[in-house]
Amino acid sequence: MNVFLTKKLEQVLPKIKAILDEHIYPLEKQYLTLPFSKVASKLKEVREIVQQQNLWNLHLSKNHGGLGFDLVEFGQISELLGTSPYGHYCFNCNAPDIGNQELLLENASDYIKETFLKPLIKGESRSCFAMTEPDFAGSNPVNMGTTAMKEGDSYVINGRKWFTTAADGATFTIVMANTNPTAENKYQKASMIIVPMETEGLEIIRNISIMGEENDSCFSHSEIQFTNCKVPIKNLVGNENEGFKLAQQRLGPGRIHHCMRWIGICERAFDLMCKRAVSRQISDTEKLGHKQTVQNWIAESRAEINAARFMVLHTAKKIDEVGAKEARIEISTIKFYVANVLMRVLDKAIQIHGALGITDDIILSFWYRHERGARIYDGPDEVHKSALARQILKGYGLDVVKRG
Amino acid sequence: MNVFLTKKLEQVLPKIKAILDEHIYPLEKQYLTLPFSKVASKLKEVREIVQQQNLWNLHLSKNHGGLGFDLVEFGQISELLGTSPYGHYCFNCNAPDIGNQELLLENASDYIKETFLKPLIKGESRSCFAMTEPDFAGSNPVNMGTTAMKEGDSYVINGRKWFTTAADGATFTIVMANTNPTAENKYQKASMIIVPMETEGLEIIRNISIMGEENDSCFSHSEIQFTNCKVPIKNLVGNENEGFKLAQQRLGPGRIHHCMRWIGICERAFDLMCKRAVSRQISDTEKLGHKQTVQNWIAESRAEINAARFMVLHTAKKIDEVGAKEARIEISTIKFYVANVLMRVLDKAIQIHGALGITDDIILSFWYRHERGARIYDGPDEVHKSALARQILKGYGLDVVKRG
Amino acid sequence: MNVFLTKKLEQVLPKIKAILDEHIYPLEKQYLTLPFSKVASKLKEVREIVQQQNLWNLHLSKNHGGLGFDLVEFGQISELLGTSPYGHYCFNCNAPDIGNQELLLENASDYIKETFLKPLIKGESRSCFAMTEPDFAGSNPVNMGTTAMKEGDSYVINGRKWFTTAADGATFTIVMANTNPTAENKYQKASMIIVPMETEGLEIIRNISIMGEENDSCFSHSEIQFTNCKVPIKNLVGNENEGFKLAQQRLGPGRIHHCMRWIGICERAFDLMCKRAVSRQISDTEKLGHKQTVQNWIAESRAEINAARFMVLHTAKKIDEVGAKEARIEISTIKFYVANVLMRVLDKAIQIHGALGITDDIILSFWYRHERGARIYDGPDEVHKSALARQILKGYGLDVVKRG
Amino acid sequence: MNVFLTKKLEQVLPKIKAILDEHIYPLEKQYLTLPFSKVASKLKEVREIVQQQNLWNLHLSKNHGGLGFDLVEFGQISELLGTSPYGHYCFNCNAPDIGNQELLLENASDYIKETFLKPLIKGESRSCFAMTEPDFAGSNPVNMGTTAMKEGDSYVINGRKWFTTAADGATFTIVMANTNPTAENKYQKASMIIVPMETEGLEIIRNISIMGEENDSCFSHSEIQFTNCKVPIKNLVGNENEGFKLAQQRLGPGRIHHCMRWIGICERAFDLMCKRAVSRQISDTEKLGHKQTVQNWIAESRAEINAARFMVLHTAKKIDEVGAKEARIEISTIKFYVANVLMRVLDKAIQIHGALGITDDIILSFWYRHERGARIYDGPDEVHKSALARQILKGYGLDVVKRG
Repeated sequence: MNVFLTKKLEQVLPKIKAILDEHIYPLEKQYLTLPFSKVASKLKEVREIVQQQNLWNLHLSKNHGGLGFDLVEFGQISELLGTSPYGHYCFNCNAPDIGNQELLLENASDYIKETFLKPLIKGESRSCFAMTEPDFAGSNPVNMGTTAMKEGDSYVINGRKWFTTAADGATFTIVMANTNPTAENKYQKASMIIVPMETEGLEIIRNISIMGEENDSCFSHSEIQFTNCKVPIKNLVGNENEGFKLAQQRLGPGRIHHCMRWIGICERAFDLMCKRAVSRQISDTEKLGHKQTVQNWIAESRAEINAARFMVLHTAKKIDEVGAKEARIEISTIKFYVANVLMRVLDKAIQIHGALGITDDIILSFWYRHERGARIYDGPDEVHKSALARQILKGYGLDVVKRG
Repeated sequence: MNVFLTKKLEQVLPKIKAILDEHIYPLEKQYLTLPFSKVASKLKEVREIVQQQNLWNLHLSKNHGGLGFDLVEFGQISELLGTSPYGHYCFNCNAPDIGNQELLLENASDYIKETFLKPLIKGESRSCFAMTEPDFAGSNPVNMGTTAMKEGDSYVINGRKWFTTAADGATFTIVMANTNPTAENKYQKASMIIVPMETEGLEIIRNISIMGEENDSCFSHSEIQFTNCKVPIKNLVGNENEGFKLAQQRLGPGRIHHCMRWIGICERAFDLMCKRAVSRQISDTEKLGHKQTVQNWIAESRAEINAARFMVLHTAKKIDEVGAKEARIEISTIKFYVANVLMRVLDKAIQIHGALGITDDIILSFWYRHERGARIYDGPDEVHKSALARQILKGYGLDVVKRG
Repeated sequence: MNVFLTKKLEQVLPKIKAILDEHIYPLEKQYLTLPFSKVASKLKEVREIVQQQNLWNLHLSKNHGGLGFDLVEFGQISELLGTSPYGHYCFNCNAPDIGNQELLLENASDYIKETFLKPLIKGESRSCFAMTEPDFAGSNPVNMGTTAMKEGDSYVINGRKWFTTAADGATFTIVMANTNPTAENKYQKASMIIVPMETEGLEIIRNISIMGEENDSCFSHSEIQFTNCKVPIKNLVGNENEGFKLAQQRLGPGRIHHCMRWIGICERAFDLMCKRAVSRQISDTEKLGHKQTVQNWIAESRAEINAARFMVLHTAKKIDEVGAKEARIEISTIKFYVANVLMRVLDKAIQIHGALGITDDIILSFWYRHERGARIYDGPDEVHKSALARQILKGYGLDVVKRG
Repeated sequence: MNVFLTKKLEQVLPKIKAILDEHIYPLEKQYLTLPFSKVASKLKEVREIVQQQNLWNLHLSKNHGGLGFDLVEFGQISELLGTSPYGHYCFNCNAPDIGNQELLLENASDYIKETFLKPLIKGESRSCFAMTEPDFAGSNPVNMGTTAMKEGDSYVINGRKWFTTAADGATFTIVMANTNPTAENKYQKASMIIVPMETEGLEIIRNISIMGEENDSCFSHSEIQFTNCKVPIKNLVGNENEGFKLAQQRLGPGRIHHCMRWIGICERAFDLMCKRAVSRQISDTEKLGHKQTVQNWIAESRAEINAARFMVLHTAKKIDEVGAKEARIEISTIKFYVANVLMRVLDKAIQIHGALGITDDIILSFWYRHERGARIYDGPDEVHKSALARQILKGYGLDVVKRG
């Protein structure tokens, strides 16, 4: 019984599940310890199957070639795809491509749509999004050092970005840069500009080594230097100096995607937990699942996952009905809440597996490393908690200036 | 935006809120440190107002004189009533009367309905429910020492019960006793039998002193001795030896009521938290709400309460649609989950109030004491967690014999 | 094996334990639900026994008539006495009398010593300490509204205090009041002044009802109004305007006493936990102690209590060797750490006892209520954490102005 | 002020610290993302410096060429060495070599000492210890499938081991195998036998990939197959069938080493935390350290680390004075307690660093991955908690058969 299940979903979810079972999960054990590029050709085959089965671009509305799922529905698709690290990519809806697609569909000129968006939607190119900078707290996107100064028909970009996900091998990046660095209104300094990766003056300094691995391609997080990097003014996305507004717009649905993906991870971890509990013999008469501690963990995880899932889907429903701006409080709430549920569930799942749990023989350690960042990226827990509390207390009359 | 809000609720909730604001909350400060009997005459006045406004017995179906709310709707009423310890009583739906009413409506003979149920529904009498025994783990109701042996037209009851809520001043109790103590099937030993409180052989040993207070009347929890206590066979509720089945039936909706009442308490505590945060000056320029720790607590509480609320209402929906038996797993889940959210929220609310928080100048310490039991009564956390986990692991093939 | 055990302790502790076992613990069940005054005559008898056995005033140095225990030793005595709420009182070292004795021994004039201190040490009078005010955050003692203005040979005191422990029935209070309210240095505004309780202008407004009970005598926490309350100047303790310094001096050993008393409570709760675990049958073949959850709680509690105990005794050692001022960081650390261990241990002990745990049939619920304040009085957790962190970060060069 | 600091330590610790600062920490950033073998030649140079400064083999008694530190002293050396993953290796006291040295010094024949131990002590060879098996819960070492059957002058070993730390490149392993698999007393089945790694029939199947990396040499954890692997009987360590007793003996000091190493990690993480707090600007006027959440984390970490440290050193003291067997309860206590403190401190340290915290630009993520196993290896938390609780409850009369 799931009040959020629709007929359309009931038709699509089993098809997705079948592809995961048959084509995606089997790749994990061999390839997850290798760089993404090693599995790329295998995934290409899966992407073709997805296209053949008309499951490509499930996030898009009907008039953009999708099946027209709303956010509540696509959230549940994202949950299922999230059960494998390769899931979203196989269905062409991995971050940051999905966010860039949504952004450009809403805000880009015909030129940009034709040149940059179209190949992205077809899956012929990849993109990235360069916002966070090493020298500024990423939690506060209005603080930025990168500038894009107009010179004739061009923007000349200078600055340093990092944690630019999937930059390695991308065709273009959307870069957030100050076009009006001295503006009084700090929300009207920056613009979003498309920069093809091969542009002179754009240099990938490194794929940052995170939790012991650099990885590459879709799984890379690059540090990028812009040095007098020149692109035509027509590469501007939306209006000049409105980059912050666009960034906000991008975040709402993005957080639903993330949260539901995390819940997908939770469900996979939970399933592994239960399978281990019923299979691992610990004495002649007992299996792990007979131990009360293990039972506690299973019960607590089930409760937390359910609670998180309901909260995210209700938030998605609110976004569907009244828009992301109205649902700002709920969006902040789910971001930190679900990220923490995720880490607790993963931790318990690993502990139940004992020594096996920290090996790469099973998938849990992959997420343990790769998702520790979930409590940090897109704003650390603490920033979201303060934001949420300040919103609430504003309703009680507290002056909302940030105070500590 | 609340997908569980119905038109009927939208009409009724404000009326209830008005009565709480005007007539109920104002009684708390003076009376909550006194025994219940001291506030009884005041509450009688409120109960008359409730009847006049046709808000009496909101839990009953239309053909029993209620407004026909389903469980999802009544849950939200229970939430609102739960914001005051006097709320449910004023609306004649306090435990255990509400559970006894539901039980008797479904299972009692005409004789019982006329004699015992009718005055209860009218609010002319009060009842109690005697199940837990001091010598047996209350978490496992199949273990019981009290017997009700047939002698001629009577049952002769012997045994000791405790934590019989609201026994003091009640007109009758429903007692759970073994009518077939040697039955092989442990679920078919006990029956439910009505015993008028004035019956010879029934003695209230004491109102148990809990967390420093004995209290009385509706707020009492008594220890009761049955010594050759004789009642006519026609006082049997439902079929003989089916007491356990009835007890189970009684529990499902009962837990929704409890959980939603707890969420009501959470909401009141949360409101007090926020009010304190915006009013307490801690330095010339700062209020409590400016401190990040306080912000964290407000954010975490908001998230937990929301998550709990969604989970309970989805469970209520499932009970409405497919019955309590099918929703057994969900019911176990919410019981322990919400009880723990409740205690965490209360604890934070107290801490925010500093020394004031532990005084009876505000209501938080009342719940801190009175609801510590929420993690124990109706089955302690640990029992529910194990039950939930065993259900889940059974689905994975684990033999479900309880193993420790 | 306890490196902190000394020969002197080895002689004294068993004698104290014998008195607890024989004369003190047996009083608890009957009297702890009653006001302190009801047990007073019984405790008087115990106090006489204590005096006869030369165990009176164990906190005092030899030249003040004690046995000359250092803080590490007395801490362990305080731990043992803490296992009963009546322990410290029976040995004449309950707060705030013990703190007042130490304060006056170090800082009072001969007049004060003779008039006020002597009867206190003999156990013929009781005292209290009036510092916290309802309108100011108690965590910051430099903020105070009460004033003591000089008029001729007198101080005239005006202001409101609350949470003045044991005021009901005391002979005198030491009041903290601003004698130089406009001083630039906020640490040099206040003085400590002795006010006999019968002085005109001193009115006990109420014994504050805390967690459901007003109590009285030693267990009262009063709200006190000073209205033009006049006392002679010779009632000044120490130097004028140095009240803050004295207050600081008083706190160091005071926190060791508190922390060790809390550890005593933990040990008693732990003992009850274990006794319950080995006695409560939950099925034909199992006792509570066979359940892994119960084992977890016992293990976690044991670990936490040990860790807390070592940390407190090392802090006491540091105070013994280099003084309280040098041990400021350690003192802040143990205050919040041990208070939280205490609450966790009590919570687990209650849960193990099920319904019995929340009754007054056993002592746990008394502490659950009475010690929730441990995380608040003498500075809430949050204040101590910030103070500790700021001290540490100061060592790393952070400017230590309090910022939120 | 540290009561555990001795004069000998005061002389040695600064020398160790100097070597860490000058020669070891600087290697981390470049080499920790690479296999151990890449840094081996660099570390060889450091090992020579250590030998020149007479700091080699600080764990050994004077008559074995060490400086004769007791466990309390060496624990504090281990703490300091633990601040770098390369620390123990550079001082020739890394696990499992240190444990093997201690084992062989106490129990080995002259032949073994000359052949295997001597080069180990000189640092000319490395060793490993093969105990855990993939098919049996490692937490219960009496369950094992590997056998060593006598044939003539040889043992013939068959079985599969895994998590054999540092096997890759070792000269020999000590293998735990059943020499009397059908013994009634399960503690008398196994023996410890030395097997040179080049012996026919011993095959390293793989270096297990853990948390994304296989690594090699000292940082490898291998899976090893023994197939009719034959070694001379004189390779037996101690007496036949007494392997379990030896294993127990090995564990006590081993856990002190681990725990103190973990505390060393905590101290390094704590230092990084503080440095970040005072350096990271989050607004024009605020640094991270001004935020109350960050202050909370610093305070909580400081308290936990102190508490853990005191508890471990008191346990070491007990082992020094009455032996590891008598200190069994304390040893179980510190194992799970400190491992959890470690993970909490690391988690907070990472969170304070934001995105930087999950990168390999700083060392935290290395430990986050490499020490998640601390709650699993040498017995998972749950096993230690149950063991501790059962020991305690045995003292209260509970029959100690393991029940679930």
